[in-house]
Amino acid sequence: MKIFKSAKSVQNYILSLKRQGRRIGFVPTMGCLHDGHLSLIKRARKDNDVVVLSIFINPIQFGPNEDYKHYPRSLKMDLMLARNGGVDVVYYPDSREMYTEDHCTYVEVNGISEVLCGEFRPGHFKGVTTVCAKLFNIVQPDIVYLGKKDYQQAIIIKQMVKNLNMPLRIKIVPIVREKDGLAISSRNRNLTKGNRKQALVIFKSLQTVRGLVKDGVKDTGKIKSKVENIISNMPGIKVEYIRVVDLKLLQPVAVIKKPVLLAIVVWIKKVRLIDNIILKP
Amino acid sequence: MKIFKSAKSVQNYILSLKRQGRRIGFVPTMGCLHDGHLSLIKRARKDNDVVVLSIFINPIQFGPNEDYKHYPRSLKMDLMLARNGGVDVVYYPDSREMYTEDHCTYVEVNGISEVLCGEFRPGHFKGVTTVCAKLFNIVQPDIVYLGKKDYQQAIIIKQMVKNLNMPLRIKIVPIVREKDGLAISSRNRNLTKGNRKQALVIFKSLQTVRGLVKDGVKDTGKIKSKVENIISNMPGIKVEYIRVVDLKLLQPVAVIKKPVLLAIVVWIKKVRLIDNIILKP
Repeated sequence: MKIFKSAKSVQNYILSLKRQGRRIGFVPTMGCLHDGHLSLIKRARKDNDVVVLSIFINPIQFGPNEDYKHYPRSLKMDLMLARNGGVDVVYYPDSREMYTEDHCTYVEVNGISEVLCGEFRPGHFKGVTTVCAKLFNIVQPDIVYLGKKDYQQAIIIKQMVKNLNMPLRIKIVPIVREKDGLAISSRNRNLTKGNRKQALVIFKSLQTVRGLVKDGVKDTGKIKSKVENIISNMPGIKVEYIRVVDLKLLQPVAVIKKPVLLAIVVWIKKVRLIDNIILKP
Repeated sequence: MKIFKSAKSVQNYILSLKRQGRRIGFVPTMGCLHDGHLSLIKRARKDNDVVVLSIFINPIQFGPNEDYKHYPRSLKMDLMLARNGGVDVVYYPDSREMYTEDHCTYVEVNGISEVLCGEFRPGHFKGVTTVCAKLFNIVQPDIVYLGKKDYQQAIIIKQMVKNLNMPLRIKIVPIVREKDGLAISSRNRNLTKGNRKQALVIFKSLQTVRGLVKDGVKDTGKIKSKVENIISNMPGIKVEYIRVVDLKLLQPVAVIKKPVLLAIVVWIKKVRLIDNIILKP
């Protein structure tokens, strides 16, 4: 497994592989690898000749009062997991090289970046699309693997790739959950044992409304109330938002006629957890 | 010479050439080719295995009251000139394919896009950087050739390429002038014979101040006044701006200590003409 810190050197290395006709699969991460990432790596390993993993906690996607400083870091463990997972190339950039003093270029996807998480984290997705444009130019992937837990992020990046004619495909890979149903996230490590148990209520609420929809409920007002009730029964959890939206433009849906996304964000103390489910009528 | 209209087809064609190790030179244009473009093509021909020319009048870089509709067009002649100049591939996209109904992604270079022409054409450079990001992703060039007449545009694009880690180089090629000194521009075709003569005063003013600087004048206030006086002696020409700025950040310079850019924009009736000169102390 090769490890690169400089953009130019990893770019040149991969460009030389591409000239040899190798297909490049890319898994961009913020490190602190977990089973969710490993499922992306596994998928990339299956589809490609070369698997590239980036580990970069992107400062410009964090707001001034967000958890950039406390975002969990575990490089040594990450490298071990990457090696065991069959990663060929790790790109581990320095943030001063990624954002030089004269950095002033940003990529923005309007509309879908401003709803849901974008409403509560202004500028967040602009930071995400900018770093992804950079990483895709550096790594030159044929296929990029993104997790469905960050559904909004995945479709924003997909839109950017389409609109800017980037020569690559985005594959969105299903959410990986713990045995008890909690969606796996690096931020789960910042939960205490007690909070970890409380967090289960998120998945429980999603399962409950999936049942409701199966039973014929189509009114999204009812569905959101149900989720809200279940969550509010658990002390110490604060809901940021619960939304039912269409799968493409992420606009609110009142009555479920085709598959929709139920997206939820909650806070447990200082930890922000997101989850979602596709509801099919 | 191959001619493509679809982004996917030209992208696939060029990607296959790149896999064969060919070096791609790219000249992006809005068509209506003239000797300025031909000098870019000539340079690209010299440096590369394959020369790609794009012809696309980019709607999103024109403001609502600008000359998008009246921008000169001459496809037949362009194709002839391209063929004679040794172009291998012409990419001539349809604007509905370039900007599909769901287009919502933009690339912006802050700061240097808002000064000089950016002040008078708000949003113009955002349109330029967005279309260039698209074209560069489609054409996958190793080297892109841009004219120095659009100095600001060239350095904005260079900044975008650097900040977004695009795997290509920008070459900025000197201004080509008519024998009488007028900087060659597609918009010159929209001048009447009489206006064409009036336009000569632009180059005359630049030559005069080049002389002044050679003679030791360093005060840019004096230099701008001189240019303004010369231009205002010619009836029918309206100055949009005359600025002396540094070469990198395009910020105003009061005293010339190192090479600076004198940039000028004038209007002759409904035709906007730009020109510039580097002044060395």
